[in-house]
Amino acid sequence: MAENLSVLGKARAEYKPKLPKSLRNGPLKALINSGKATESVRDQEKIKDLFPNTYGAPVLTFDASEEKQTAGGPLNVGVVLSGGQAPGGHNVIAGIFDGIKAVIGGSKLYGFLGGPSGLEEGKYIEIDRALMDKYRNTGGFDIIQSGRTKLESTAQFDKCIEVAKKLDLNAIVIIGGDDSNTNAAVLAEYFMAKKVSCSVIGCPKTIDGDLKNEYIETSFGFDTAVKTYSELIGNIERDANSARKYWHFIKLMGRSASHIGLEAALQTRPNICLISEEIKEKKMTLEQVVFSIVDIIVARYGAGKNFGVALIPEGLVEFIPEFGTLISELNEALAHNEAEIKNAGKTPDMAEAACKHISEASAKLLKSLPEGIQLQLMLDRDPHGNVQVSLIETEKLLIEMVAKELKVRAFKGKFGALSHFFGYEGRCAAPSNFDADYCYSLGYAASVLVLHKKTGYMASVRNLTAGIENWTAGGVPTTMMMNIERRHGADKPVIQKALVDLNGKPFKYFAEHRNDWAKGEEYLYPGPIQYFGPSEVCDITNYTLMLERNAIK
Amino acid sequence: MAENLSVLGKARAEYKPKLPKSLRNGPLKALINSGKATESVRDQEKIKDLFPNTYGAPVLTFDASEEKQTAGGPLNVGVVLSGGQAPGGHNVIAGIFDGIKAVIGGSKLYGFLGGPSGLEEGKYIEIDRALMDKYRNTGGFDIIQSGRTKLESTAQFDKCIEVAKKLDLNAIVIIGGDDSNTNAAVLAEYFMAKKVSCSVIGCPKTIDGDLKNEYIETSFGFDTAVKTYSELIGNIERDANSARKYWHFIKLMGRSASHIGLEAALQTRPNICLISEEIKEKKMTLEQVVFSIVDIIVARYGAGKNFGVALIPEGLVEFIPEFGTLISELNEALAHNEAEIKNAGKTPDMAEAACKHISEASAKLLKSLPEGIQLQLMLDRDPHGNVQVSLIETEKLLIEMVAKELKVRAFKGKFGALSHFFGYEGRCAAPSNFDADYCYSLGYAASVLVLHKKTGYMASVRNLTAGIENWTAGGVPTTMMMNIERRHGADKPVIQKALVDLNGKPFKYFAEHRNDWAKGEEYLYPGPIQYFGPSEVCDITNYTLMLERNAIK
Repeated sequence: MAENLSVLGKARAEYKPKLPKSLRNGPLKALINSGKATESVRDQEKIKDLFPNTYGAPVLTFDASEEKQTAGGPLNVGVVLSGGQAPGGHNVIAGIFDGIKAVIGGSKLYGFLGGPSGLEEGKYIEIDRALMDKYRNTGGFDIIQSGRTKLESTAQFDKCIEVAKKLDLNAIVIIGGDDSNTNAAVLAEYFMAKKVSCSVIGCPKTIDGDLKNEYIETSFGFDTAVKTYSELIGNIERDANSARKYWHFIKLMGRSASHIGLEAALQTRPNICLISEEIKEKKMTLEQVVFSIVDIIVARYGAGKNFGVALIPEGLVEFIPEFGTLISELNEALAHNEAEIKNAGKTPDMAEAACKHISEASAKLLKSLPEGIQLQLMLDRDPHGNVQVSLIETEKLLIEMVAKELKVRAFKGKFGALSHFFGYEGRCAAPSNFDADYCYSLGYAASVLVLHKKTGYMASVRNLTAGIENWTAGGVPTTMMMNIERRHGADKPVIQKALVDLNGKPFKYFAEHRNDWAKGEEYLYPGPIQYFGPSEVCDITNYTLMLERNAIK
Repeated sequence: MAENLSVLGKARAEYKPKLPKSLRNGPLKALINSGKATESVRDQEKIKDLFPNTYGAPVLTFDASEEKQTAGGPLNVGVVLSGGQAPGGHNVIAGIFDGIKAVIGGSKLYGFLGGPSGLEEGKYIEIDRALMDKYRNTGGFDIIQSGRTKLESTAQFDKCIEVAKKLDLNAIVIIGGDDSNTNAAVLAEYFMAKKVSCSVIGCPKTIDGDLKNEYIETSFGFDTAVKTYSELIGNIERDANSARKYWHFIKLMGRSASHIGLEAALQTRPNICLISEEIKEKKMTLEQVVFSIVDIIVARYGAGKNFGVALIPEGLVEFIPEFGTLISELNEALAHNEAEIKNAGKTPDMAEAACKHISEASAKLLKSLPEGIQLQLMLDRDPHGNVQVSLIETEKLLIEMVAKELKVRAFKGKFGALSHFFGYEGRCAAPSNFDADYCYSLGYAASVLVLHKKTGYMASVRNLTAGIENWTAGGVPTTMMMNIERRHGADKPVIQKALVDLNGKPFKYFAEHRNDWAKGEEYLYPGPIQYFGPSEVCDITNYTLMLERNAIK
């Protein structure tokens, strides 16, 4: 009982992540094939101007070769974990570690502590084998922790140069989401411009699943996180179907895109799943969203089923157009009339005061909200004075508004609603076999890119639904995924965020089946992630990826 | 994708639960050994008076025999799921099903729908092989649903007799917690008195873990539920240790006893775990509980660790003596002065009005609570006019009071607290191998008791930490576990509820280590329940059981 590892942790430490064929003979036998010069997805001229040194680099794919390249000197690599945790981060690091050690003994891996600030401030540890072995196949980012500092300014970049020089780094690998990878590309360009011979390589991380495109089939962590949430959702569905008296409203983490909710719905077939992107596309009002839920509750009640499960994406309210308008009008109103509004006393007085300074439509919406939410919108503001949308408990907002509407409709049943929020439960889960293999392969691919002094690339592993035998590894120039977007009043080059595609197969499958799922109890119970069983149980990836890649119908 | 089972569900359907040796040759080859006449744990005379026909029956143990008994006619058995869901209920039913079918073809299993009310009202389905096979090794009680009706009155018992006669039942098996098993024993006695030749057998179910004693080593469902919660707690600990900026307050389901919290603590080693029984024993005030948490937060902050994880048992407030006093005084005050208090306006006015009618100490406590909780205590009352303690969001109450105390102590850090409540996530999880085997064995043992016309017994499977080879099966007379307790103003025979024993090994182990766990990050990450891997991963049971049975140190 005094062990420091759980029994599963101990068994799982022995797992050897699988690699694509092209990497199995080690980095020195990975042959690099270069494609043609590339262009960014949009705004080519502007992106090219911003990245004169790194723009247009070719897509790289690796092949297994029998010839062994010579190694050159030891490789010194620094690694950074940026932003929210995602399952598999430790395996990316393990892939880099094993990759550079396989190139040549004496290669060193440094871990910058606490995220990008660790790189900027030169706070690091050397990751040796004993340390690395403790973290193989584990969840979390605790090996070096993560952080949310953004590396954007030249002052910061210059500090990074100092650190890179001090540690004699051949490369820095930044493991992060779309923003962090954008910043990594800017840093790569800056290093090139300053003739600093240190590569900067990115790795696609986010449980949100919104960092993907033709070359990045999925971001790591999405698979494990959604499987963990789906385990819980399935259990709750089973509970709902056994107790037959509760409606469970389950909010799922995810800053903006609804990929997590959509995938969880495909895995568990709940009665209701809201997709933010669809609500925005259809320009639905909050009332319409509430009505759509109430309609299903009333219909199920009519069929003798006063219970169900509804999935709510965390980012929902920002996708309801009128809510967006209300929030920006409130930001404006509070900026200019804060004293008047706050001195008006508690709601409804405070709301009345605010309503004088916003449009009629927004006033109506504000007054329709539960008191607690009204107060939150007017009182909880971030350091810039903006309403903190992320603090809104959307699942509770919906429960209150649904209850109100059920009263209006003279609903005869008892509306027994329970709310849940799943996020932290899955962000640090130990990676599924898929994420364990994918992450390790990404890290290993990064080591090959480092060996070949490639910079401004993201490590890429593709063909992910064809069996690991057929996975292909390589690198994609980050500029290729970029376009120009307006952020905080300025044009910025950014990696296009992938929202749920309403014409894509995952959404279409969901849309075709959701009416049946609403009426019946077609619940699926995925159960906990398995590591040791039959391959069809343990190595399966997620529906989103399989549908997008035409791997299932 | 159109399958009705998840991939794991499909694989898991094939699992054949293991049986103790004495049952492996089928119920007809299970030899029954009877012990001596028994006595109830306390109040022997009173219990004997109440159970003249069933009191004193011997403990039964089964042995495997080579001789086969003759079967007699087909057995008709009715089964009831009573109360909250617990993982493995379906396997108990499968054990009964396979058991009586193995006695003789033509035996029938009826499932009463929606809990004890289904028995009373004669609402049932026949469970045939096709239906049974859909539910083997699955979570939930959805095969026939459950319910909370209590069978206590003779009018109800007489209805049960009608149903038993109509279906020509040899036995009724009631799967439930302490109350349901008490009622089953009363029903058994009533049937005997009325010369109704239908046995009544109980099975020990509850995730709370508080139905246990010398003969019932553990209630089914506890193992799986706590493993599921521990998976999530471990993930959150990993998140806390990666992000290093949040304190997670995790409330765990469990009506009164803290077995779930204690076991989860042993599995995950959090920084804090409150044990209600200890708080009651030490007569701690709410303030002292809050201070004990704040002390740890401040000490960790001083060591550069402004994060942590705290486990909170759901039933906590009822174990804080002064809180119990406050609640009973408030019940009294509201019963006699409701109009005055409710018309006093919102808090603090309402609280002031209430405070006139309660003791000074209670008034002080009431005023020290966050406003929302004050209102809840005065406004949310059950149909009997009593404060609804179960609605109090203890985890949020503690967060608010901790934040207040941190301010008093001029805490320099930011107290970033997040709350969670885990209950529904685990109640209907698919059973662990342990619960799958244990439940199936309990059901199978019940079928042997039925075959031998035993009544007033609970099915019992013991020696649970010695490997299933050495598990022993049998039956324990329910009266043996009873004593007299005061309930709702009357003396009632009840099965003694097993609270956490502060002198027991599980608590002692926890108490010896908690200071280290508070300071450090000795987190254990149990990960998801595994079904297919190495036996030490998949077949292990829980620490509580192993420590209580001296199976580990």
